[in-house]
Parts: sequence; C-alpha cells; structure tokens
Amino acid sequence: MAPQTMEFLARLRGALGTAVSTAPNELADARTDRSGYLSPGVPVAIVTARSIDDVQVALRLASEFLIPIVPRGAGSGLAGGATATEGALVISTTAMNRILEISLADELAVVEPGVLNQQLSDQVLDDGYIFSPDPASKAISTIGGNIATNAGGLLCAKYGVTRDAVLGLKVVLADGRLISTGHRSVKGVTGLDLTALLTGSEGTLGIIVEATVRLRPIPAGVSVTIGTFFESVTAAAAASAAITATRLKPAVMELMDAESLLAVDALNGTDLRSRGAAYLLIQTDGPAAADEANHIVALTRLLGGQSELSTDPTEGERLLAIRRSFHPALEARGSVLIEDVCVPRSALAAMFAEIELIGLRHGLRIATIAHAGDGNLHPNFVLEPGVSVVPDAVWLAAGELFEAALNLGGTLTGEHGVGVLKRRWLGAELGSDSYELQRQIKAVFDPLGIMNPGKVF
Amino acid sequence: MAPQTMEFLARLRGALGTAVSTAPNELADARTDRSGYLSPGVPVAIVTARSIDDVQVALRLASEFLIPIVPRGAGSGLAGGATATEGALVISTTAMNRILEISLADELAVVEPGVLNQQLSDQVLDDGYIFSPDPASKAISTIGGNIATNAGGLLCAKYGVTRDAVLGLKVVLADGRLISTGHRSVKGVTGLDLTALLTGSEGTLGIIVEATVRLRPIPAGVSVTIGTFFESVTAAAAASAAITATRLKPAVMELMDAESLLAVDALNGTDLRSRGAAYLLIQTDGPAAADEANHIVALTRLLGGQSELSTDPTEGERLLAIRRSFHPALEARGSVLIEDVCVPRSALAAMFAEIELIGLRHGLRIATIAHAGDGNLHPNFVLEPGVSVVPDAVWLAAGELFEAALNLGGTLTGEHGVGVLKRRWLGAELGSDSYELQRQIKAVFDPLGIMNPGKVF
Ligand SMILES: Cc1cc2nc3c(=O)[nH]c(=O)nc-3n(C[C@H](O)[C@H](O)[C@H](O)COP(=O)(O)OP(=O)(O)OC[C@H]3O[C@@H](n4cnc5c(N)ncnc54)[C@H](O)[C@@H]3O)c2cc1C
Ligand SMILES: Cc1cc2nc3c(=O)[nH]c(=O)nc-3n(C[C@H](O)[C@H](O)[C@H](O)COP(=O)(O)OP(=O)(O)OC[C@H]3O[C@@H](n4cnc5c(N)ncnc54)[C@H](O)[C@@H]3O)c2cc1C
Repeated sequence: MAPQTMEFLARLRGALGTAVSTAPNELADARTDRSGYLSPGVPVAIVTARSIDDVQVALRLASEFLIPIVPRGAGSGLAGGATATEGALVISTTAMNRILEISLADELAVVEPGVLNQQLSDQVLDDGYIFSPDPASKAISTIGGNIATNAGGLLCAKYGVTRDAVLGLKVVLADGRLISTGHRSVKGVTGLDLTALLTGSEGTLGIIVEATVRLRPIPAGVSVTIGTFFESVTAAAAASAAITATRLKPAVMELMDAESLLAVDALNGTDLRSRGAAYLLIQTDGPAAADEANHIVALTRLLGGQSELSTDPTEGERLLAIRRSFHPALEARGSVLIEDVCVPRSALAAMFAEIELIGLRHGLRIATIAHAGDGNLHPNFVLEPGVSVVPDAVWLAAGELFEAALNLGGTLTGEHGVGVLKRRWLGAELGSDSYELQRQIKAVFDPLGIMNPGKVF
Repeated sequence: MAPQTMEFLARLRGALGTAVSTAPNELADARTDRSGYLSPGVPVAIVTARSIDDVQVALRLASEFLIPIVPRGAGSGLAGGATATEGALVISTTAMNRILEISLADELAVVEPGVLNQQLSDQVLDDGYIFSPDPASKAISTIGGNIATNAGGLLCAKYGVTRDAVLGLKVVLADGRLISTGHRSVKGVTGLDLTALLTGSEGTLGIIVEATVRLRPIPAGVSVTIGTFFESVTAAAAASAAITATRLKPAVMELMDAESLLAVDALNGTDLRSRGAAYLLIQTDGPAAADEANHIVALTRLLGGQSELSTDPTEGERLLAIRRSFHPALEARGSVLIEDVCVPRSALAAMFAEIELIGLRHGLRIATIAHAGDGNLHPNFVLEPGVSVVPDAVWLAAGELFEAALNLGGTLTGEHGVGVLKRRWLGAELGSDSYELQRQIKAVFDPLGIMNPGKVF
C-alpha cells in the first residue's frame, strides 16, 4: 500500500474509528451488486456512515487525498453503479436508517438514506398511506439507492417514479459541503431543479444523506386482480396497448412471455406455459376498481385472452405471486443479465418482436417481463451453467436491444440506470452535445472527479 | 447605435429577413410582461422565429456579437422573466405554434413552443384527453412559457405541475447548437435528467423549440362542485387541511379571503362578502366524485362552513366563475403585485395569519387567493390609484412574506418563477453553496452569459 494511502487510512480511522472497515470479506462484497458484475479493482476501505457528519468527514479527507468515492446503499442495483473500484473508498449509507419524521398532515416523511423502501411503507400503512415508488426490490433496497437510481416499480405507470415522490434532499458534495435542495411544500420553482437533477444521478454528483419524500393515500376500495393468458406475446402486448388506449389506468399491468412462464413452471412445478404463451397480470384500484376490471376483462377476451378475475385479496396474491416468482425462477437457472429497455407504450409489441429476432439471431434464450403500463421491458439473458461473466455474444445481443429501443423512440434504461454496464451505449442515446453538457455538469458538483468515477460517464 | 450593433442587425436581417423587427412599439411592448414590471432598457430587435433554424441562426449571431438574448413566449409571466433588457435581442417563439403530432396510443403530443396551452387541450378534448397543467392563464400563455416556468394551475394538486407532463425537449443552446433531451417513453433514466433541469429554467439555459408532452385521460364521471363560505380565512384554511388529512383528493381546491370577495363583489355587484369572510371552492372528479363531495360537505359543515353542492355543470361553472373573476376584479382596482409563496399544506392557516399581520404592520390591503390543495398562496398587493411602479414599502412587505414562507418550510415562488422580481431573495432561499452551484450549471449551458442575463441569478 502506498504511504499516501496509509496516511489517508490512518487519518480516516482517527476521525471515524470503528465506522471504517478494511475487512477483506467486506471489501470483496462491495466489489459486486445484484447485476452479477464483479469489479476488477479492490477498494481501500468501507465507511459505514452513522451520520451526515461522518459522510462529510470522509469526503473532506477523500478530496484531500484524491481518493475515489463509491456511494453504496443496499447493493441491490442491477447496473454495477455501487460496485467498488480499485483504490476507492466505499461510503455505505445503510446504517443511516432512521425515519426522522412522518407528517400525515403534509403527506410527507423525512428519512435517512438507509431506510429500506418497505420499512417506510410499513410504517404508514395503518394510517392509510404508502410510499408509492415500489421497485420489485422494495424489501431489500434503500430509499437513498432508490433516489440515486430514480427507481421505478409496479405501481409507477399510475403513481409515478421515485422522482415524482421526492420533495427535497440533503446532499454531501465531493468536497464535504452539505447542501439542501427543494422544500417541504409540494410545489416550488426557485431556481434550477437540483432535486430532480440529483434524482437518478447514480452517486456521480454527491451523497444523499437525507430525503423529504411524499406519502400517498392508499386509494379507497378493494383492488381487483386479473390474470390473462394469451396465445402469443404479441397478442398480450396488443391487449395492454388497447387497455391504455381505452383510457383505463390500471395500478399494475405486468406482462410475462413464454420463456418467463417456463422458468416459473420449473421453479414451482406449475403448468402455466401450457395455458398460454404469455401472461398479462393487471390490478385495478380505487373506487372504480370493479368497473374498470370488468371493462378490462371484456377487452382482453375480445382480443383472445383467457382471463380470471378476483376481488379476493388471497386469490389476488396468488395471481401476483406468479409475477413475483420470476426473479427467483431465473436465478435458479443460473446467472442472469437483466436488461431494462423502455419504449413508447404503442411500441411494446414491436419491441417484443425485436427481442425474439435478436434471440434467434444469436441463439440465445431471452425471458422477458414488462411493466406494460409504461412500456418498460426487462429482457433477461440466462447464462450457460457455470458461466458467471457475461460473454461477448450476450453483450452483442444487448447492444442490438438498445439500438432497437432507441429506434422505437425509447431508451436503453427505463429504471435500473447506466452504472458501469451501459456506459458504452450512453453516448449513442444522448448524442455528443448532451453527453458533453452532462459531463460538465458533473464537473460543477465534483471538480476533482472523485465521485463514483467510471460510472455512468 | 454602435457600429458593432449595426453590423449585428444587418447580418441578422440578411439571414432572417422579415422575422426581424425593430418597430418601436414592438420593442416597447417587449419591455414588460403581466407583472407590470417595466424594464429600464430597450432591446435592439425582436426575432419572431418561424422555425428551429431561425432560432439557431439568431443565437449563433448573438454569440458572435455577444448580444444578450431574452426568450419570450406570450409575455403573460408574472415575474418579469421575459422582459427585454438594454441592447438585448428578444426571441419570440409565439409564431412557432404548430401541434406537430398527437399520439393517443402513447398519450403524448409533440408541439412547437408557441402553441397555446388551451389550444392543445381543445385539440384532444373530443378524444377524452387533456393537457393537465392548467395555469389560470391557459388561454393566453404558451406551452414553451409554461415549461420555462414549470407552471402550476388549478388541477396540479391532483394531476401534477408542468414538469410532470414533459417527456422530452428540443432546446437551442446559446451558441446555436440544438440538443434533444428525454424520450417518447414515459420512463427513462439514461444519465442526468436534463429535461427536468430545463423545465423551470426561465430562459436562462437555452430556448425551448419543441416539446414532447403527456396527455392525460379525462377522468370518467361527472365532476361535483362545492362552494363553502366560512366566518374566517383561518377556518377555511383549517377545513382545507382537514380535507387533505382525510385523504380525499379534490381535483380543485381554491381558497379566497375576505379582501378577494370584496373585490369580486365590487366588480360583479354580488354580495359574497356578506355571506362569509372566506370562500373555499372545491371540485371532485372521477368515479367517486359524488361520494367524495358528500364527505367534503359533511366535513366542512362540521368545521363551521356553509356549503352548496352542485352536480350540474352550469351551476358548477357559476361557482367556479367566482374564482375566475378574481384577476379581473383586482385589475379593475388598479395595478397589482401578485405574489406567489408556497408552504406545506398544514401551514396554510399559519401563512394566512402571517399575511394578515404583515398587512396590518405596513397598512397595506392584501387580497389573497390560494391553491389550497398544494399550499400555494397568491397574496395580491393592490397599488394606490395612479401608482404603477411597486413602492418600496410594498417590497418590504413582500420580503417579509417570503421570509415567513421560508420559516414555515416553504418557498418564495410556488409557480411564477424568480424572473427579475425575486432575484434579490433567491440567495436567501437557496443558501450560498446551492446558489453558486446553480450559477455554475448555467455557465455550462451558456459560457458567454448571454441567455436572459439579469434574470433569476
Ligand atoms: C430482484 C430485484 C428486483 C429489482 N426490481 C427493480 C424494479 O422493479 N425497479 C427498479 O428501478 N429497480 C429494481 N431493482 C434494482 C435496484 O433494486 C434498484 O436500483 C434500487 O433502487 C437500488 O437501491 P440500493 O439501496 O440497493 O442501491 P445500490 O445498489 O447500493 O446503489 C445503486 C446506485 O445508487 C447509488 N447510491 C446508493 N446510495 C446512495 C446515496 N445515499 N447517495 C448517492 N448515491 C447512492 C450507488 O452509487 C449506485 O450508483 C431490482 C433489483 C433486484 C435485485
Ligand atoms: C391572469 C394570469 C393568471 C396566471 N395564472 C397562473 C397560474 O395559475 N399558474 C402559473 O404557473 N402561472 C400563472 N400565470 C403566469 C404565466 O401565465 C405563466 O408563467 C406562463 O407559464 C407564462 O407563459 P408565457 O408564454 O406567457 O411566457 P412568458 O411570460 O413570455 O415567459 C415566461 C418565462 O419563460 C421564458 N420563456 C418563454 N418562452 C420560452 C422558450 N420558448 N424557451 C425558453 N424560455 C422561454 C421567458 O424568458 C420567461 O423567463 C398567470 C398570469 C396571468 C396574467
């Protein structure tokens, strides 16, 4: 270890004591996230911050010694954004996990970044509120991580993405300064919208140390769940587009293709695939839930679907469980690369057709689920048994996916972010002028370039 | 005129012909907006752009000659943001007023910036859609201006502000380069969110030349309108807070104080003020509109209100017309300074109390209306007859308003923006670090400092 680094560590330990760890297993864990990507580098240490002050102290020292910083929440990310690079200092915000305030009168909560998404929703459930951004990882991911990635979820077609739920932030900049953005009021246009700029910035602009977020009243009435099998994924995609086109707004609208059903069957011993080549799972909520559900069933039947509808919560849960089995089912098959393209909703069927072509062209099995309500598809590449590093052939196919999504007017990442895994395609989507502007904006926040270097840009 | 300026004008005319005007009356008109603020300076010319290309040509020349640029929509702004400064080139985007595309399948429209807000909603009304950002100025303001100010409106507590309705932008930068941000998909997290950063940037970062905006299905069912008189504005504010606290989400919730009622009475010959000291106007929509309205009436009665409820559209219009008379009523009294503070909803009554105190302290009559559903108050200072420049005493009182709003956790502008009129208070709200960051971000977009100089920062 270079003497400089040793001095840095000594100073860090002197200032933060047991919050600093260099335990080899912890350093190793921080090199990866749930994308399966393994950083080739090894970090120098991990600070498990207990307070804003801890974060400030660590960043001041990192600035002084020019040590790269990797902000890290629960490490559930799927783009490699929180993975530790060579010589970096990882700042984990997971231990800053207190809910500081809940104000039902103002429908907001003030939280530390390490609060788990589910933890906040659980806390306000009995009062009839929810923290509506609901990534499928809500039980394990932190609100800080959700904000840093602008996470989406099942409910976001109707209730918005994380950005729509963030009112204000406290952020520590690379040089250790603490800034506040936004306000407790639901509206405000004083100056540039730094709250929105920081949301989705993937740890490249600063460390989120506190957030004021909206709570949303749970809609009155009983939710209705509808599961529909179709003979082809194109038919299912067309049905989801038709539902949007009739101006119905389901709370949840998820689509699973044949490969997904096969995987779930293999895990659970069910026979879903024999009942159809695609499954559309819909939930309506609010006072018109039953009415809307009846319309939807009529429409899906007209379009060739086989629907079951349920107003019983347990039965609804059983239908939703099919969708929830998806990630475990794929993981049971081997390593997975989860992709995340998003297209205009009318292009959903076209995008499924592109995926099929790409799979055929490269001889790859791709299992795709989609948040159909907002055109967000997750094509999953299951790697050969024993293979853990994504082979070039798969990246080639992924590149074609991104190109197809862009050509359809969409984007290469709907909710997971760019991280390390999509860096090489970022310029293609943004264009060189926008890309350059973004790099310069990053430099305003982080002139030394120590905030999560090598991620996004 | 300096030879440099003459050369600039000659080159501009050579390139853009009749799109360039130096007619004294047009130059004079551009010195003000609907705030009543009159710029002390006189611009050199106005370009009424007909195309993106026109805007690019003008900005390239302005960069070459270091001529300040003032972007201007309909000039309905209330913060002086579009007012022409000395030696500036005004770029009006009002003539770029084509709706380029409407896609109901994707629930979006692509528009030029000069399209009037109402024009777009009218266009999609028969299909059951609306462009939901609805400033009270929707009939006269442009979508470009709405985006540049992140305009709010009556419906925004339930349906979101302009930012929530913008998917993507085309923007010409100070040096004439054209960038695109965002996408046609409803979600996307590729890099930093420049679309959100540009929304609300008040012409300081670039000129918006095209926008892809969301359309929203009009909720099913008949809207219900409820007008309630209260004996005090505090009682009315408490009732609006109670409605929020019972998790009801009215589409419209507007509050008028005694001074406002007096002004409307004077205009229309009505006797509203004799029926109460405050008026709370509520509209519920969607399938549960009637149910929600009944709950609201019960609640307001419990809290001392006298309510009338109507499901008849004409009768509902009559109740809404009271609120709509407000601006004309004040204008009939003389020049007005319209303020725009926003506080957390629970602090609405406290903010009304502060306004009363400030009025008493300075011997000023302040008529206040509030978008109570989101805590946004518009205190209006009516100037003495014959006075058109805002006197220092009024600015002193306004300063105290801003301070009170900040102390309550709010902001000095909920929807009108900073422009010239609130510049001097911006630093107090942002703090020096955030302020400096914002200035540097502006410099990334506009290194020569020619985009709307003297506005916001
Ligand atoms: C089974 C499964 C399902 C998933 N489903 C979804 C889904 O439906 N929708 C979705 O959007 N995502 C989903 N994800 C991805 C992931 O859970 C989200 O991106 C989540 O928001 C990450 O939160 P985290 O706390 O784990 O952050 P991490 O993975 O630790 O970090 C993610 C990024 O945020 C940055 N970061 C973390 N904390 C901070 C902080 N305090 N300040 C600044 N930057 C910070 C990191 O540097 C990194 O760039 C899923 C993941 C899994 C494993
Ligand atoms: C009676 C009345 C009621 C109002 N009610 C509301 C309300 O309820 N809610 C609300 O939010 N506002 C309201 N306003 C204020 C005003 O109408 C809004 O701010 C509106 O969005 C301004 O649009 P405009 O086209 O008139 O823009 P302008 O006034 O011309 O410009 C406003 C700002 O936007 C910039 N700008 C304009 N066009 C562009 C462009 N193409 N590119 C870049 N920058 C541009 C200008 O430089 C300026 O800073 C009201 C005004 C009046 C007179």
